[in-house]
Amino acid sequence: MTESNAMAHLRARQSAWETGALHEALSRMPERAETFMTTSSEPIERLYTPLDVAGIDPVDDIGFPGEYPYTRGVHPTGPRGKLWTMRMFAGFGTAEETNARFKFLLNEGQTGLSVAFDLPTLYGYDTDAPETLGEFGKCGVAICTLDDMEVLLNGLPLDKVTTSMTINSPAAIIWAMYIAAAEKRGIPRAALGGTIQNDILKEYIAQKEFIFPPRPSMRLVTDTVEFGTRDLPLWNTISISGYHIREAGATAVQELAFTLADGMEYVRWAIARGVDVDAFAPRLSFFFNAHNDFFEEVAKFRAARRIWARAMRERFGAKRERSWLLRTHAQTAGASLTAQQPEINVARVALQAMAAVLGGTQSLHTNSLDEALALPSQSAVQIALRTQQIIAHESGVANTVDPLGGSYFVEALTTRMEREAERMFGEIEALGGVLPAIEQGYFQRHIADSAARYQHEIEQRQRLVVGVNAYVDAAPPRVPILKMDRDGERRQLERLARVKRERDAEAVSARLAALREGARGSANLMPLLLEAVLARATLQEMMDVLRGVFGVYQEPVIL
Amino acid sequence: MTESNAMAHLRARQSAWETGALHEALSRMPERAETFMTTSSEPIERLYTPLDVAGIDPVDDIGFPGEYPYTRGVHPTGPRGKLWTMRMFAGFGTAEETNARFKFLLNEGQTGLSVAFDLPTLYGYDTDAPETLGEFGKCGVAICTLDDMEVLLNGLPLDKVTTSMTINSPAAIIWAMYIAAAEKRGIPRAALGGTIQNDILKEYIAQKEFIFPPRPSMRLVTDTVEFGTRDLPLWNTISISGYHIREAGATAVQELAFTLADGMEYVRWAIARGVDVDAFAPRLSFFFNAHNDFFEEVAKFRAARRIWARAMRERFGAKRERSWLLRTHAQTAGASLTAQQPEINVARVALQAMAAVLGGTQSLHTNSLDEALALPSQSAVQIALRTQQIIAHESGVANTVDPLGGSYFVEALTTRMEREAERMFGEIEALGGVLPAIEQGYFQRHIADSAARYQHEIEQRQRLVVGVNAYVDAAPPRVPILKMDRDGERRQLERLARVKRERDAEAVSARLAALREGARGSANLMPLLLEAVLARATLQEMMDVLRGVFGVYQEPVIL
Repeated sequence: MTESNAMAHLRARQSAWETGALHEALSRMPERAETFMTTSSEPIERLYTPLDVAGIDPVDDIGFPGEYPYTRGVHPTGPRGKLWTMRMFAGFGTAEETNARFKFLLNEGQTGLSVAFDLPTLYGYDTDAPETLGEFGKCGVAICTLDDMEVLLNGLPLDKVTTSMTINSPAAIIWAMYIAAAEKRGIPRAALGGTIQNDILKEYIAQKEFIFPPRPSMRLVTDTVEFGTRDLPLWNTISISGYHIREAGATAVQELAFTLADGMEYVRWAIARGVDVDAFAPRLSFFFNAHNDFFEEVAKFRAARRIWARAMRERFGAKRERSWLLRTHAQTAGASLTAQQPEINVARVALQAMAAVLGGTQSLHTNSLDEALALPSQSAVQIALRTQQIIAHESGVANTVDPLGGSYFVEALTTRMEREAERMFGEIEALGGVLPAIEQGYFQRHIADSAARYQHEIEQRQRLVVGVNAYVDAAPPRVPILKMDRDGERRQLERLARVKRERDAEAVSARLAALREGARGSANLMPLLLEAVLARATLQEMMDVLRGVFGVYQEPVIL
Repeated sequence: MTESNAMAHLRARQSAWETGALHEALSRMPERAETFMTTSSEPIERLYTPLDVAGIDPVDDIGFPGEYPYTRGVHPTGPRGKLWTMRMFAGFGTAEETNARFKFLLNEGQTGLSVAFDLPTLYGYDTDAPETLGEFGKCGVAICTLDDMEVLLNGLPLDKVTTSMTINSPAAIIWAMYIAAAEKRGIPRAALGGTIQNDILKEYIAQKEFIFPPRPSMRLVTDTVEFGTRDLPLWNTISISGYHIREAGATAVQELAFTLADGMEYVRWAIARGVDVDAFAPRLSFFFNAHNDFFEEVAKFRAARRIWARAMRERFGAKRERSWLLRTHAQTAGASLTAQQPEINVARVALQAMAAVLGGTQSLHTNSLDEALALPSQSAVQIALRTQQIIAHESGVANTVDPLGGSYFVEALTTRMEREAERMFGEIEALGGVLPAIEQGYFQRHIADSAARYQHEIEQRQRLVVGVNAYVDAAPPRVPILKMDRDGERRQLERLARVKRERDAEAVSARLAALREGARGSANLMPLLLEAVLARATLQEMMDVLRGVFGVYQEPVIL
């Protein structure tokens, strides 16, 4: 039978099924709802068949893993070659406490490190700053000086495991501290592998932890890209992050499109700086959310790889295969967890993590069951890590590459999400690009609309959330909550005071002055930051210099 | 492009990928193992592509849901029309305690009932029997008389929810008690929906809770099929069970093949009794395990439907569509749960349950996290039920029918499992059929071999089990354990004594004598059992009569 004959036969049979068995079933019993929708409120068809994938080419669109356009994964052997990195986002209180947590996690089988910083650090303040009083150590670890960073990394095998650091506006400074701490231990920067999040665009779009206006922020990011490309060939200079966009209420397609649009914007800036696209592109990495909707999430990861590969090759003319690869970290959806009946979050996280793995992620954080209540306790984080180990070693899904490839539903959804994302790229371009779109509130408005629709669906019970608007249990949560060292803040303040007392004050002033000069000009700031870090300038002192030169951003009111 | 041209193009491209990208990747870094295997030790290929499904017809083999051969499900609208029944296997101690657990479960959103009986009941003994002293209420509820059954069902909406009862050798008696209890409440037997497990063949094969020899056991099963077909049109007369075969150590394919072979044996006996296949076949149901290996499990359910449909239509000449349908209950794999770090069982159960749902089960039990330690506590069973509710309402997988349809891997695996099962059917037929195969130890030997291989793989650490031979934690389990009513056994013994004291002893003797006569002849025993039940004969009294007539089976020594 020729292909078109086979399709005609199939079409006839499908039509007979619709008017026959299906029609009869529907007349006997209607479906549970008029329409069925994903977590992102996208409509889903009753059935997907070969007709739904007729326009998708098995070679050019789906292809082979490790081969353009990478729909089936970035590596030919997938998890058979190497399991994803199990990387738990962790950090609280002092550098000592977080260092102990890291050692616990490595001992339990974690294979990568991921640092959460506290709010003062994220906003570029030291622990003693009145601006962020009372926020010490609450959402992560406090890092003010190179001394703190050395304590944080004490005894960790930095030449063997990679470290991811969730830091954005002060990313260059925190990175400089990391490099300096490693070099003091004799590990050359060229041997350091890891990631700084350093994705400032998504801060304006969603997470709102920006400090400087967009353009100087982009200059700082581009400084790190240029510096890393030259000095730290194993370091991912940006982790282009959809995670926070999604957590703010975006749909899966918005997460996909906005994140990739941000990525392309970083590429444009680095090219404009004169860095060869094939030199820096291989070290851009991504970070996506793994939310509830199992197949929508799988399709999102697959679509992301295909879109990025095509954009890098066709739009930006990258020549190296490594420049086309979208490598990504994933984290299960914090916003999907419930404070009610927290133990059931283990089930949510297991399913979300499975979706990320089937989507082909390179790295994964699994949320702890108690994260809607507090920072994760050690026993909760152990369960979350074990969940990844069960997926890796017991579920069998790491036996073959892209097990969902060819599924009529998954392939159709992958292609639909790719097309939707392309449509959004067109809208962003029509506004003049990512920065003008931010300034005009394009992203923020679309995310707010999606978040409001989702909330409305929950209120109307069109969407059921177990334990929240269905299957509610009045009993209070039964899980133990993390207790932090009550003495931690005092010890952190003492260390900061000692550093300030003992350092060479003149050297610090000189380094800060040089940084100011550099910032006013167009020098790459990374070497200047490294020198200031080594002189024991504090995070806030360096950030204050940059605040003085770059200014502080006020978000425009979005109507 | 014609189909063969397209395939040739694909073949050429796949070959280029193998000698190019793949070869290069493998020479850079070998895979983690020489071969990759499923939970059932079946080898899995690195990649599945359209070439692997080239011999599978999209219409005749995959087809449409609710249409022969039902690979994509038994109903055209799948879970969009009706969610699977959430049916938690429950029972412990007295009928009062178990009745309270049932009411709790229904209140928490369970949609079907499932009764676990205690060991004395399973073996046909009353609570006061010396043969099973000390076993009261431990693995289920004790039911000796109609009075116990009435307490068990007190206040339950038997005309609205269906009840499944895991009982085999004494199935006819327990069923008679259920019917009698319902009719005393004014609910006619024709309105009763539910299931008796009543699958004696798998007892000889795996579970070993047989009493009588195979042939009289099969006569008793056939009596229930004949009786149910005439009097209880909504009742599933046998739940043909792979679950226990799998728990005993069988592979997924063995579970599939042995279970369907058992099913065909029941069909042969009922046809030989003279019951019209299209009258009884629609009320045969199945019960499969949902084990760790995600895709192997999904494929098993899909293959089971296709094999059964083809067998019923082609081998047994069934004409009604309803006779071709394999409808099934599923339970997550008890044997996969660990006593170590029991909280991580929530993740295992979530993934196994997801596989059962993606496989298209009609009914599901999710195991509780503490089941490797004790009977499930109320809080553990609530988490297990919530897991199903999260899959149903949050994961999005109930939005479309058979979302994995078309996946190269899943379709290839489905077909491979179908072929392997057909090969095993041939072996069984060569031995003379299911009963001779049991008598020759065919099933038992194959299951023992599989179990031994699995154990060997764990000992050799070719297979990692989280918390057992990897990621071990010395800390003792932290979960609370079910406490049973310490006074329950005394109350149960008092009720049994009261029934024996107050009933009409002569009537009981007469009914038991009639049962003995019937058993010696070829009468259908169900009406005789119903009369004995109504006269308050005890379970053991009736079973003793049958033991006297049928004899007690001694398993042959299997070499």
